[in-house]
Amino acid sequence: MNTTQIVLASRPTGMPTQENFRSETITLPDLQPAEVMVQGLYYSVDPYMRGRMNEGKSYVPPFKIDCPLEGGVIGKVITSRSDQFKKGDIVIGNLPWQEACVVADNKIKPLHATVSPISFYLSVLGMTGLTAYLGLMQIGVPKAGETVVVSGAGGAVGIVVGQIAKLKECHVIGISGSEEKANLLKAQFGFDEVINYKTTSKMSEAVRAACPKGVDIYFDNVGGELSDAVMSCINKHARIPLCGQISLYNTTQIPVGPRVQPLLLTRSSLMQGFIVSDYETLFPEASTQLTKWLAEGKLKFTDTIVHGFPQLPAALLGLFTGENTGKMVVRA
Amino acid sequence: MNTTQIVLASRPTGMPTQENFRSETITLPDLQPAEVMVQGLYYSVDPYMRGRMNEGKSYVPPFKIDCPLEGGVIGKVITSRSDQFKKGDIVIGNLPWQEACVVADNKIKPLHATVSPISFYLSVLGMTGLTAYLGLMQIGVPKAGETVVVSGAGGAVGIVVGQIAKLKECHVIGISGSEEKANLLKAQFGFDEVINYKTTSKMSEAVRAACPKGVDIYFDNVGGELSDAVMSCINKHARIPLCGQISLYNTTQIPVGPRVQPLLLTRSSLMQGFIVSDYETLFPEASTQLTKWLAEGKLKFTDTIVHGFPQLPAALLGLFTGENTGKMVVRA
Repeated sequence: MNTTQIVLASRPTGMPTQENFRSETITLPDLQPAEVMVQGLYYSVDPYMRGRMNEGKSYVPPFKIDCPLEGGVIGKVITSRSDQFKKGDIVIGNLPWQEACVVADNKIKPLHATVSPISFYLSVLGMTGLTAYLGLMQIGVPKAGETVVVSGAGGAVGIVVGQIAKLKECHVIGISGSEEKANLLKAQFGFDEVINYKTTSKMSEAVRAACPKGVDIYFDNVGGELSDAVMSCINKHARIPLCGQISLYNTTQIPVGPRVQPLLLTRSSLMQGFIVSDYETLFPEASTQLTKWLAEGKLKFTDTIVHGFPQLPAALLGLFTGENTGKMVVRA
Repeated sequence: MNTTQIVLASRPTGMPTQENFRSETITLPDLQPAEVMVQGLYYSVDPYMRGRMNEGKSYVPPFKIDCPLEGGVIGKVITSRSDQFKKGDIVIGNLPWQEACVVADNKIKPLHATVSPISFYLSVLGMTGLTAYLGLMQIGVPKAGETVVVSGAGGAVGIVVGQIAKLKECHVIGISGSEEKANLLKAQFGFDEVINYKTTSKMSEAVRAACPKGVDIYFDNVGGELSDAVMSCINKHARIPLCGQISLYNTTQIPVGPRVQPLLLTRSSLMQGFIVSDYETLFPEASTQLTKWLAEGKLKFTDTIVHGFPQLPAALLGLFTGENTGKMVVRA
């Protein structure tokens, strides 16, 4: 059977473009024992994928040139030679960017969705939600009455971090790049205030005004100059979980900025990078809590759904220009 | 009774000079009940004092213009109206830079020295030793076989950090600014290797060569470019206790350098500033351990003693040009 795949054609310098991807038709191999053929339904695109397009090591090994990219996928089994899966089963796993793929049955898990839309299992109930929950709870350790600032607040992780911080009775300030997202975060997701960094000339002053008691936790998805502004407002014993640095992923030189060490030193503060897999042992309890909050209506979420498998590269590129609200997902 | 005091004459811009200090004669007030008059014997000078010479808040409130500086002092009671102290008692406390001073008895503690020289109670058995022990053990959390890098290795804190790391069976690399200190650290204090940053042109390469397994803990007393070199070699799950940034204390502009966030992020690493008082509840156990190691000969220490009370400003300035090995102490 033939299928379409999207491969990494070349490694980007700076901001990736469509030129770095190539779509091609391949013939899928015959199924071997314990293998299944999966048709993709939903594909997750995530900022961390930018790092995998580079040669150097990032969180995870780089994508290979002329090989399909890969990421979180929800799919449907169309043929099976596994005794674990039968035709029609809905599954989830880290799979290649192919319309259909052949994989070993230990690469996928059955997905018995109790929540809809099903794409939530790639987002608020997937790595995104776990990242938000575990980064905030394990590194941020929010206490009632504290002030929490979240950058990339309208992104997949940020939108969850802000809501959990509110559930923990914190004062929550988001930083976002659009008025529309800012309004949505306040009206629908309970953020106390949102600063639009694109229309704010003096970010430090804006952060200071929004955080009259200073910043106790800065959950950073973005980095760069807007983080400098937040850092200038941190309190003694502040915690800064570093979840992403999306503003820096496409820089071609080593990014330079004010050194954070003097601030961390004089304010006895902690800055810690993490990847969700650092907390793998805590996934079950985190998933249970997130599912419970979602069921109770205490946690809300939204996806940006892009339609059509060929849109995968465009959807990924859109993350770097802020085109998504919440999770960016491609529906095949 | 008259005495001499050294006051802050003006706040320095950049590197402080003798002009920022003034020596003057004052008349001590009569003793009130529960007060004692203390004659200073040993005065501690410490890098953190530079921060207190500025107007802005640092760890601790700034020194006041036209008022004496203050710091750790060992002294002898010469007159007492306290029932806690009698003439001749040896005491320790945070006291003004005065040859003699009048203080409330709750500002000092009796010092029953069991270790000599007595100046060690301002250094390896004082704040210096506690800082080294608690920063390394609480933030660094060394494990046998790990690689520990210490900057300012020949300074008061660094010399202790390196030895504790060796006691914890780590591979220990010091960074220092003189060949003499480098040799001493290796020959006398058990460092595996010492990099002289003043004679090394490619610091990253030197760190990489000295740390073939990468850097697990970087105990940073210095900051600036030499820290950039160490940071480029950190391992996944590295810990960076920030104890000082002496290379930056005298800068007049906000210091700029490569951003550390991308490194901390992709290597799931932790950077944490601290001041020893963050761990006040652990002082007794830390003191007990340090005293035990010292008694067993497992921990060695050295002071640089400067003679004469009027030398206090020069001794403090000497910290910023690396004139001390181990603790810089002024003997009155």
